[in-house]
Amino acid sequence: MIISMVPKATKEQIEHVCEKIKSFGYTAHPIYGEERVVIGAIGDGKDKDHVISVMESVPGVESVIPILQPFKLVGRELKKDKTIIKIDGFTIGGDQFVVMAGPCSVEYREQILTTAERVKAAGAKVLRGGAYKPRTSPYDFQGLEEEGLKLLAEAREKTGLKIITEIITPENIELVNDYTDIFQVGARNMQNFALLKKLGKVKKPVMLKRGMMSTLKEFLMSAEYIVSQGNSQVVLCERGIRTFETYTRNTLDISAVPALQQLSHLPVIVDPSHGTGKRSLIAPVSKAAVAVGADGLIVEVHPNPEEAYSDGQQSLLPDEFEELMKGVKKYLAVEGKSL
Amino acid sequence: MIISMVPKATKEQIEHVCEKIKSFGYTAHPIYGEERVVIGAIGDGKDKDHVISVMESVPGVESVIPILQPFKLVGRELKKDKTIIKIDGFTIGGDQFVVMAGPCSVEYREQILTTAERVKAAGAKVLRGGAYKPRTSPYDFQGLEEEGLKLLAEAREKTGLKIITEIITPENIELVNDYTDIFQVGARNMQNFALLKKLGKVKKPVMLKRGMMSTLKEFLMSAEYIVSQGNSQVVLCERGIRTFETYTRNTLDISAVPALQQLSHLPVIVDPSHGTGKRSLIAPVSKAAVAVGADGLIVEVHPNPEEAYSDGQQSLLPDEFEELMKGVKKYLAVEGKSL
Amino acid sequence: MIISMVPKATKEQIEHVCEKIKSFGYTAHPIYGEERVVIGAIGDGKDKDHVISVMESVPGVESVIPILQPFKLVGRELKKDKTIIKIDGFTIGGDQFVVMAGPCSVEYREQILTTAERVKAAGAKVLRGGAYKPRTSPYDFQGLEEEGLKLLAEAREKTGLKIITEIITPENIELVNDYTDIFQVGARNMQNFALLKKLGKVKKPVMLKRGMMSTLKEFLMSAEYIVSQGNSQVVLCERGIRTFETYTRNTLDISAVPALQQLSHLPVIVDPSHGTGKRSLIAPVSKAAVAVGADGLIVEVHPNPEEAYSDGQQSLLPDEFEELMKGVKKYLAVEGKSL
Amino acid sequence: MIISMVPKATKEQIEHVCEKIKSFGYTAHPIYGEERVVIGAIGDGKDKDHVISVMESVPGVESVIPILQPFKLVGRELKKDKTIIKIDGFTIGGDQFVVMAGPCSVEYREQILTTAERVKAAGAKVLRGGAYKPRTSPYDFQGLEEEGLKLLAEAREKTGLKIITEIITPENIELVNDYTDIFQVGARNMQNFALLKKLGKVKKPVMLKRGMMSTLKEFLMSAEYIVSQGNSQVVLCERGIRTFETYTRNTLDISAVPALQQLSHLPVIVDPSHGTGKRSLIAPVSKAAVAVGADGLIVEVHPNPEEAYSDGQQSLLPDEFEELMKGVKKYLAVEGKSL
Repeated sequence: MIISMVPKATKEQIEHVCEKIKSFGYTAHPIYGEERVVIGAIGDGKDKDHVISVMESVPGVESVIPILQPFKLVGRELKKDKTIIKIDGFTIGGDQFVVMAGPCSVEYREQILTTAERVKAAGAKVLRGGAYKPRTSPYDFQGLEEEGLKLLAEAREKTGLKIITEIITPENIELVNDYTDIFQVGARNMQNFALLKKLGKVKKPVMLKRGMMSTLKEFLMSAEYIVSQGNSQVVLCERGIRTFETYTRNTLDISAVPALQQLSHLPVIVDPSHGTGKRSLIAPVSKAAVAVGADGLIVEVHPNPEEAYSDGQQSLLPDEFEELMKGVKKYLAVEGKSL
Repeated sequence: MIISMVPKATKEQIEHVCEKIKSFGYTAHPIYGEERVVIGAIGDGKDKDHVISVMESVPGVESVIPILQPFKLVGRELKKDKTIIKIDGFTIGGDQFVVMAGPCSVEYREQILTTAERVKAAGAKVLRGGAYKPRTSPYDFQGLEEEGLKLLAEAREKTGLKIITEIITPENIELVNDYTDIFQVGARNMQNFALLKKLGKVKKPVMLKRGMMSTLKEFLMSAEYIVSQGNSQVVLCERGIRTFETYTRNTLDISAVPALQQLSHLPVIVDPSHGTGKRSLIAPVSKAAVAVGADGLIVEVHPNPEEAYSDGQQSLLPDEFEELMKGVKKYLAVEGKSL
Repeated sequence: MIISMVPKATKEQIEHVCEKIKSFGYTAHPIYGEERVVIGAIGDGKDKDHVISVMESVPGVESVIPILQPFKLVGRELKKDKTIIKIDGFTIGGDQFVVMAGPCSVEYREQILTTAERVKAAGAKVLRGGAYKPRTSPYDFQGLEEEGLKLLAEAREKTGLKIITEIITPENIELVNDYTDIFQVGARNMQNFALLKKLGKVKKPVMLKRGMMSTLKEFLMSAEYIVSQGNSQVVLCERGIRTFETYTRNTLDISAVPALQQLSHLPVIVDPSHGTGKRSLIAPVSKAAVAVGADGLIVEVHPNPEEAYSDGQQSLLPDEFEELMKGVKKYLAVEGKSL
Repeated sequence: MIISMVPKATKEQIEHVCEKIKSFGYTAHPIYGEERVVIGAIGDGKDKDHVISVMESVPGVESVIPILQPFKLVGRELKKDKTIIKIDGFTIGGDQFVVMAGPCSVEYREQILTTAERVKAAGAKVLRGGAYKPRTSPYDFQGLEEEGLKLLAEAREKTGLKIITEIITPENIELVNDYTDIFQVGARNMQNFALLKKLGKVKKPVMLKRGMMSTLKEFLMSAEYIVSQGNSQVVLCERGIRTFETYTRNTLDISAVPALQQLSHLPVIVDPSHGTGKRSLIAPVSKAAVAVGADGLIVEVHPNPEEAYSDGQQSLLPDEFEELMKGVKKYLAVEGKSL
């Protein structure tokens, strides 16, 4: 790390900083400029965040600039090869482009079974559907809970699709584990560290959505929470961030896809439904996801959006989803990838 | 709510919307403009969020604009009088300005006991200190856990201060309840709805921090989660939001204090430590909190910030805190309030 | 527009609002709800912004919600067909995908001529290059001014490329008009209304960049400034917005491209160089621009980025640009478009 | 500056960087860490921004971190004493708290004269009023232009107030100079560098508003533009930034006031009208401005907000302004300041 001293730092302050750095096992390399001294601290990076925090509090220090990326296990520096997650019958992170599709919430048997058949026919590999819904209002539909999980399992049995469903609290992990193939962590829970730690002990893939207010670094640190507990099957999902723009529900950060892939070996997928919040923007943005090299999509599809309990305005009809998949396939062909 | 149709909406679409609204128990009032039709929907607001979501998906609808505030229990419309929370020996939300102070994390016995004595002497009523820390990195100090809670309890016994400590997962509520006087929900958990629901069953006050990317409406909806479960003792805390500005750690939204007090009857306090992230800005911003009518402050104080395990750069020394309290008292005198 | 009254608005206040609306030539349609009255105001929309502003100040009014889009001339409501701008030899907004490329600043003869030849060979139709540079610091290179314009003209003569260059103040319009084929308005000047008005009198196309803090509505209103003065040849350019994320220089708002095309008939191009600020992200994002249906790109290319006076870290080498164009062409083929 | 190399930078790359740095007149201090090399570059900072830009483009370089603040003339490092601007009869930046007040736009004689008398009586020293208005829509009222300047001058004559008015284009500087005492640069023109440069040649104070999406550093660099041309009479104005929050028109960044005063010697005032956009928030925020140490306020006051051509919903009635000033005075007394 680099420690920049204030302009008029005293000799004593500089020496104090150097000693303090050494006490943490670093070596100190002061560089004397005309107006200011900066000190290079070289070491093995253990407890680095703590050391940075401490050094920022030492008198005479103006700022501390970390040099190394703080994510060890999910970063590209230690593991060069891309992570490929094998799920029965397909892989995420390799040459396949995996599409997950289904309703925002599991609502009733007919709804989920119809959707499952239609998205399967169009090329999806995974059925999405929320049984536990994190809703802004306590008065909104909160999900069918275990009943919803059972309906998802039935749809899996009927179609052969795998299922992904959201987990919102550590207390439910065992129950949800009895049903799901992939755990989904929603944007609001990206920094629910108690949840992440427990998912690090699970033997199934976890799809982690980027928080609406989270930097790429924080996003990767949350993935690091899961991986550091032993579960390396993490899929990152860009789903839009919150900005000043209100025309779209969120601002899909398309550059985040290649950026994350350059920083990390984990697969990255895109959620164009939450990323835009507008039905008319989902198809173009899905093609853009292929274009930037995403490893897949997660899309909201509902047989009757007008009756959906949640997110109707951003759900595609099965026919619209079919159309979207045609466009996606043309672009995958250019990239030499397949569904 | 107001439903705005697209410019060329057909007669059939308009009729379909009117019928749909009626099926939810609303009456429909179409207004025919030159370019477009808008439809007023009047009713009792039950299931309103669901209805809005459905209506946004109906063909021909361009947008749906809710008119009523979605927060019933925490809003001023139903309860005009300000909520005053009584804690043994003082109140929050009335004529007292309650200051909570202490270290970011409970670290060791000496640290918490010294801090407690100093902040008590300076006028604080509540001792803060984290025993469970939500940290961005899994490699950072995660808190002393129950050991930390015991140290807080010891400090309470020695000083008579009440204690506030953070709860990060529903699984710990019972344990933390054995020690704390006030539960703190951190910014990252503002929309951890499983946690909020359980805190709604607790018989102690909950201080809810605003999420770093949460609107005032979402903030109040999260408070509504707690209150709707039966616990009306909620204190709101403005602690800065995330913006493009990086000079300060967060951007303290000072207008949010009077805005929240106009929208809601709940007490509102300010966290100048997280709100600025810079020691030199904490004192001026604390005085500003008094000036806008806040009901209190929560401030980080550490006897040796240079050794703090977390947030050292934004922690005040006990002497600095004493100085801050002197400034605060002068302003409270102007407002006719007391500590 | 819809006027929502406060919950306890008096009969007098409601009548006053209705009369006031009528005095502006609207008809008033009050709807009485259980808790609140809302009033629909129907009329021809003249002076609408002024009326909204006035109504928001009337006692008893809580909020005023406009229903119509405020952009008349650039919106799709009045003109359904897409605007196609004809420039000698090609068109923007039709079936061609127009690529503009060149250095951030015109620096020296060799630089601009070499770049021109290389980007022409790779398929670009327009040469970009700044002669007047808006720089954050007064101590940074401010451009070669007229000397730069002359070099651009020489490059045009040699290669047949058209040229685009930035205009930063109304005082320079005549001079720049002597040289350029397309005027570029930079992000910082998107709301320099004095400049926009004068460009509305010019007979050449204007490429208007989105301000880094501007909503789509504000962006289109700025285009409306130009068009309302008589110049309908406006090209919109999405170049990234400012958000909390600092990993990329800006956050490219990819959804803005189809959103703008749905709202407006004007052509929309993408600037992946400023949109990402990172060389490694430019190629994937350029392909994404094709995927979402953009009408073109503007890309920074420099023969020696290491020596560039500005924006070197986001400039492509001519070889990299050639590679990018190959990728773009494959995607254009899928869409049935050509360079 | 500090140059951080990529993890596997080659010996040749490191040497090339060191030589390049030396060619700019810096000395190079490489520090060899376990995973990466960082290079301290020490020198006199000439052309620093250019050098940073160049170094970011050199192969093997990951990032370049400037150490010195880029603002020389407006920063505290070279000039410790606060700038005090003397205007006939009062000063800005010293022990006085200067209040500027008046309507958003000058509309008609009666309006500006009445307002002038009322704000003068309440303690204001400067009358504000726009004669040239930068409006989002080309169809909105654009100001009375020179007629408005004449009315301001008449109000000055009648009341003895000084006047401040907005300048929106360099072409108008001479004309506006004939009338105004202080030039106002609006938020949208904070980076209109052609305008700033010309204002650097003027002999009158300039009040520069912070752009709605401008960092403190950019804000100070814009002030540097004016000062570097010879005009050191610059007053900074915090007027709220654009964030995701829509409840308030902007988010007033209250911490920016002490932060700017710590970074710069220039006076800093607050605009609570644009900073909140809501009448009910203006008084509390004005008191907060005193509390954080601001040097003054600029407040919108209109004798009949309901008839205002612009910003009616954030304009105070003269009576409300009088009330606000009473609150402000009490706080100034605590601080030992006066109007």
